[in-house]
Amino acid sequence: MLPWQADLDGRVDEHVIDSESLRGNPLNDPHRRPLWVYVPPGYDDDPARAYPSVYVIQGYTGHLAMWRNRTPFRQPFVETADQVFARGEAPPAIVVYVDAWTAYGGSQFVDSPGTGRYHTYLCDEVVPWVDAHYRTLPGREHRAIMGKSSGGFGAMITPMLRPDLFGALATHAGDSLYEHCYLPGFAEATRHLRAFDGDIQRWWKEFQTRPAFTDPADGVLLTVLGCSAAFSARPDGTPEPPFDPRTGEVRPELWRRWLDWDPVRMVRTVPEYADAMRSMRAIWIDAGTKDEFYLDLGAEAFRQALLDSGVSPDVVHFELFEAGHGAIDYRYPLSLAWLARRVSG
Amino acid sequence: MLPWQADLDGRVDEHVIDSESLRGNPLNDPHRRPLWVYVPPGYDDDPARAYPSVYVIQGYTGHLAMWRNRTPFRQPFVETADQVFARGEAPPAIVVYVDAWTAYGGSQFVDSPGTGRYHTYLCDEVVPWVDAHYRTLPGREHRAIMGKSSGGFGAMITPMLRPDLFGALATHAGDSLYEHCYLPGFAEATRHLRAFDGDIQRWWKEFQTRPAFTDPADGVLLTVLGCSAAFSARPDGTPEPPFDPRTGEVRPELWRRWLDWDPVRMVRTVPEYADAMRSMRAIWIDAGTKDEFYLDLGAEAFRQALLDSGVSPDVVHFELFEAGHGAIDYRYPLSLAWLARRVSG
Amino acid sequence: MLPWQADLDGRVDEHVIDSESLRGNPLNDPHRRPLWVYVPPGYDDDPARAYPSVYVIQGYTGHLAMWRNRTPFRQPFVETADQVFARGEAPPAIVVYVDAWTAYGGSQFVDSPGTGRYHTYLCDEVVPWVDAHYRTLPGREHRAIMGKSSGGFGAMITPMLRPDLFGALATHAGDSLYEHCYLPGFAEATRHLRAFDGDIQRWWKEFQTRPAFTDPADGVLLTVLGCSAAFSARPDGTPEPPFDPRTGEVRPELWRRWLDWDPVRMVRTVPEYADAMRSMRAIWIDAGTKDEFYLDLGAEAFRQALLDSGVSPDVVHFELFEAGHGAIDYRYPLSLAWLARRVSG
Amino acid sequence: MLPWQADLDGRVDEHVIDSESLRGNPLNDPHRRPLWVYVPPGYDDDPARAYPSVYVIQGYTGHLAMWRNRTPFRQPFVETADQVFARGEAPPAIVVYVDAWTAYGGSQFVDSPGTGRYHTYLCDEVVPWVDAHYRTLPGREHRAIMGKSSGGFGAMITPMLRPDLFGALATHAGDSLYEHCYLPGFAEATRHLRAFDGDIQRWWKEFQTRPAFTDPADGVLLTVLGCSAAFSARPDGTPEPPFDPRTGEVRPELWRRWLDWDPVRMVRTVPEYADAMRSMRAIWIDAGTKDEFYLDLGAEAFRQALLDSGVSPDVVHFELFEAGHGAIDYRYPLSLAWLARRVSG
Repeated sequence: MLPWQADLDGRVDEHVIDSESLRGNPLNDPHRRPLWVYVPPGYDDDPARAYPSVYVIQGYTGHLAMWRNRTPFRQPFVETADQVFARGEAPPAIVVYVDAWTAYGGSQFVDSPGTGRYHTYLCDEVVPWVDAHYRTLPGREHRAIMGKSSGGFGAMITPMLRPDLFGALATHAGDSLYEHCYLPGFAEATRHLRAFDGDIQRWWKEFQTRPAFTDPADGVLLTVLGCSAAFSARPDGTPEPPFDPRTGEVRPELWRRWLDWDPVRMVRTVPEYADAMRSMRAIWIDAGTKDEFYLDLGAEAFRQALLDSGVSPDVVHFELFEAGHGAIDYRYPLSLAWLARRVSG
Repeated sequence: MLPWQADLDGRVDEHVIDSESLRGNPLNDPHRRPLWVYVPPGYDDDPARAYPSVYVIQGYTGHLAMWRNRTPFRQPFVETADQVFARGEAPPAIVVYVDAWTAYGGSQFVDSPGTGRYHTYLCDEVVPWVDAHYRTLPGREHRAIMGKSSGGFGAMITPMLRPDLFGALATHAGDSLYEHCYLPGFAEATRHLRAFDGDIQRWWKEFQTRPAFTDPADGVLLTVLGCSAAFSARPDGTPEPPFDPRTGEVRPELWRRWLDWDPVRMVRTVPEYADAMRSMRAIWIDAGTKDEFYLDLGAEAFRQALLDSGVSPDVVHFELFEAGHGAIDYRYPLSLAWLARRVSG
Repeated sequence: MLPWQADLDGRVDEHVIDSESLRGNPLNDPHRRPLWVYVPPGYDDDPARAYPSVYVIQGYTGHLAMWRNRTPFRQPFVETADQVFARGEAPPAIVVYVDAWTAYGGSQFVDSPGTGRYHTYLCDEVVPWVDAHYRTLPGREHRAIMGKSSGGFGAMITPMLRPDLFGALATHAGDSLYEHCYLPGFAEATRHLRAFDGDIQRWWKEFQTRPAFTDPADGVLLTVLGCSAAFSARPDGTPEPPFDPRTGEVRPELWRRWLDWDPVRMVRTVPEYADAMRSMRAIWIDAGTKDEFYLDLGAEAFRQALLDSGVSPDVVHFELFEAGHGAIDYRYPLSLAWLARRVSG
Repeated sequence: MLPWQADLDGRVDEHVIDSESLRGNPLNDPHRRPLWVYVPPGYDDDPARAYPSVYVIQGYTGHLAMWRNRTPFRQPFVETADQVFARGEAPPAIVVYVDAWTAYGGSQFVDSPGTGRYHTYLCDEVVPWVDAHYRTLPGREHRAIMGKSSGGFGAMITPMLRPDLFGALATHAGDSLYEHCYLPGFAEATRHLRAFDGDIQRWWKEFQTRPAFTDPADGVLLTVLGCSAAFSARPDGTPEPPFDPRTGEVRPELWRRWLDWDPVRMVRTVPEYADAMRSMRAIWIDAGTKDEFYLDLGAEAFRQALLDSGVSPDVVHFELFEAGHGAIDYRYPLSLAWLARRVSG
């Protein structure tokens, strides 16, 4: 009923996928997960035709239902993504909306004793399920992944780990260059933890007893907790923040485990990751010039690491735009269209 | 599927109301409007029972679909409102979600040549429609209205104008004390208008050609435009900002028209509005102590104006809480429960 | 010894002036005041020559000794002013540094029962004293006044009140357009006063017992107190803030007294002030585009008021520059040189 | 003439010291340096008495003349330091104000091919000069050093390097825990350097052509340049920022050279520095809880490193206070008095 609202020309099918990998996950999060699959206009008319697929993953604290959120004067991505195809801006593609939410707000799309096996779930369960249930074009060269923020991170690392599955990616303000995107948060977190005797678990317990995000500490502490669960959990699953919670001093061994997941360092130091990147057909990198987490620098550094590793400039689209970290969903259809063109044909 | 997600114990009926008042409105906004009516648990079991009603209106740029938006670790108000009744925190009530969106983002719930007859629509169309279609308790003493920000403003002024309809209200950070909530925006707006040669219509045209809110000017200019449409439109509907767009100097005659809609001044200077407030059964006033529009001061001033006008402290609930203007939806169930108790029986 | 440090080509004489007007002032501030008089290079060589004079007044909390403060990589104005003449950028002039400090941090250069007779002191004591002790060119057309912030305010109003004395002025970010430069402070002040039970005198007592400016409230409360002393003191000298200290609501009668001192309104509404401005030989107006008190708007509005009152554009120099309110001392030599050229010959 | 102004009970002697170490320094800064020596009340009355000495060094961009700067409602440290002794708050001591300014704004009090031999100058020239010209108590146990910000850094490292000279120290918000005090500046600097094609020397040339600090980039770039000159200069003196100026990526080898100067790491990793600290008679550490460079965390971490290294808690005074990084000069007399007590007798 809103002037800027649109009916879809394509169709979103809402599924539930029963994940083996997530069964018994350490946070007792559901192992039955929502999975949305969008098919473009015409999908039902031509049952012989197969389509490339683009996997869409979310930023920290995102969960699938939020894709339907409406904001004033803008359309949700589900609608703007549909328009990409409805308007013929790109060859038709299947778009897969993947859920990887956890009790901490996210999984970083990795396998971790702190959260669960979200990387395995995505690569070994969701992808095969989609291929089995939809007429996707087989082969990595027709499969892309995209996301923003932590979703952008996932879109960078998943193809590094599984170039056999993904041949293209788009990262919008994706977590990278950890000295700038994460370290400042440790300082803030340390200050906030003074009220919790330096114990992030105390904060976490308290957080769960009241409306979320009513304490200014909540945002950064949740990120620290969740990323520690993903990157530096003990074998028993306990998240260990990579800094002394009373002084903010970095703990080198734990911080090293985080840095091992920094996409910039991954490309620079692990030959098979560089190989994987060189094998990509398309890499979209963008970020806002005022990104609060300095992910514009992360974007620049990731691009530079790619080029230094021999990735051809021809496959890279790089762009900084005037914006911060938030409310940049209007960028997604641009990369979706570009990816769809690159992984078609 | 989210741990914090809840099925409703009550039920939301989604209607469309065909408004005579809004037909042919000056912005060509739809005159067919969504209207959601929530009935509490048990409504269908006892067909003889009548219920009090609480009308819920929205802040600037709000539209009904946004009530369904999900944010991490929180539930939408539609769910938390349901819990108020499901948990027996208040006697059952009917909750009416009213849409008063316009092309400028809002109507301030007044009749104006700049936007349309939203006050009339709310009072003379929505209320009778609900009373006709649902088993509401008749009488103003069983009807309340609540909202946040511009919705809080609407919740203050509508019962002033129509005490025959509404006998209770709740305002969360409602627009008031205009020297502090609006004037600073005029200074900001003036600076932004330098890029548009002082012409807000130029900005408005440009705004509609690109993703909304990608220019830092957008927020304040939209508010200026919309409130000028509501409060200081010319007879032909053209919004006239109450300041010189090249210097920021207040234009007294136009500013006076805004001040005539300041709830604080309305109570202080118009005897029938003070009468109306004295007749209320319940008035909830709250705001965050760090409200970016100083609506904590607006709340204090509105309370003081009420008390100075002879409103009994017994009917007033006043509260400041540690927060800014945003993300205070967790306050709504508190006032809803309080209102429901006050307008029952 | 600093590379950017300079010896003066001219000379600064430091005097003490014994003021009758300030004797017995309500704040018990000294009536013996420092007065610095700068004579340009060559002054002593040609005892027959007379010079134009430029009076320099200070912003809020300024006192004469601060003119000697050094900041890194910059020279104090006393040195850069000297260079204007040493380099021949302007005809030689006498520069008079006037002290108008009070216990509240300033006087606004007006006569008030709240602070003392600083306007009288400046016009009827300092100016004659200088003329008596130095070879100044007689006549208003050879006498200018300049200042920044509150000093800019003083530089606007003093020639309005005494066009017989001053024929030129320069205002850098001078206080004007009070709805934007002062009102936001009232909202902030009200919040801070919660901790002092709404009583600014309580804060003032407390302020004097500890290091100044260690409470974030100090800055705005000091300004409110001092300007209330200047503009809205009771006959007995008690400063009365022009707003309800518990709600922030403007008190119209007191606020009116402030507005009567708004340079924009003074020019617009008092014919003799407009006359005075029309009689000026030179009016320099500037401000930073990001001035925290919106004095860029104040500058624009003052200029517009002048032009609307018939001041010739030829006598006005207007400039906005990229800066905030602080650290704009590098602007002063520009206006000093311009004024010196205009009031010579 | 100001109510809060005070004449000194002691005396400040202004000397110029001709430094061999600084002769021919790479920045062509003066090798003749101002040196102020304060003698306490009574110094001249008892020619047989010897006194402990406290060396005072300055923060980045500080130079000696700035100690005389006046701010409203406060006294300069030269006066408040005098009061410490005039009021008998501590046994009398000689206070030595040392200049270590450079063209980049500071030296960090180290020897470097990028700036000059400021450590040598301080330890091998200034200290002996003072001892030769004043009746100081001989021995490290009667000699302390104190400073704020970069001066606090100097006060931490100088006694580590020269425990034979200094037996006590006070650091106010001293640079330490470099991951939090310096790294965020690299990200900001990288953004600013976009306008200079990634070349900090281009900025530096441009900086010298206009009023300093009129570009928001100036502050952080000056710090980067100056600290690179101090910590990571090439043998030929060229400062090398420890990050890629186009991406912000840390350059590990250069960053390592900075970290080697992090007081926290120095104590933790170099046994002789830990030894030096264990030999101190008094260590004052403080910082504001909202320090913009997170030097409250630096203070906590430095204290923890000291305690972990076996420094006795008895010799440590630790305090966080509610403030940011600026305007904390009211803290200096507290540490001066404490140090004077500790190094007397």
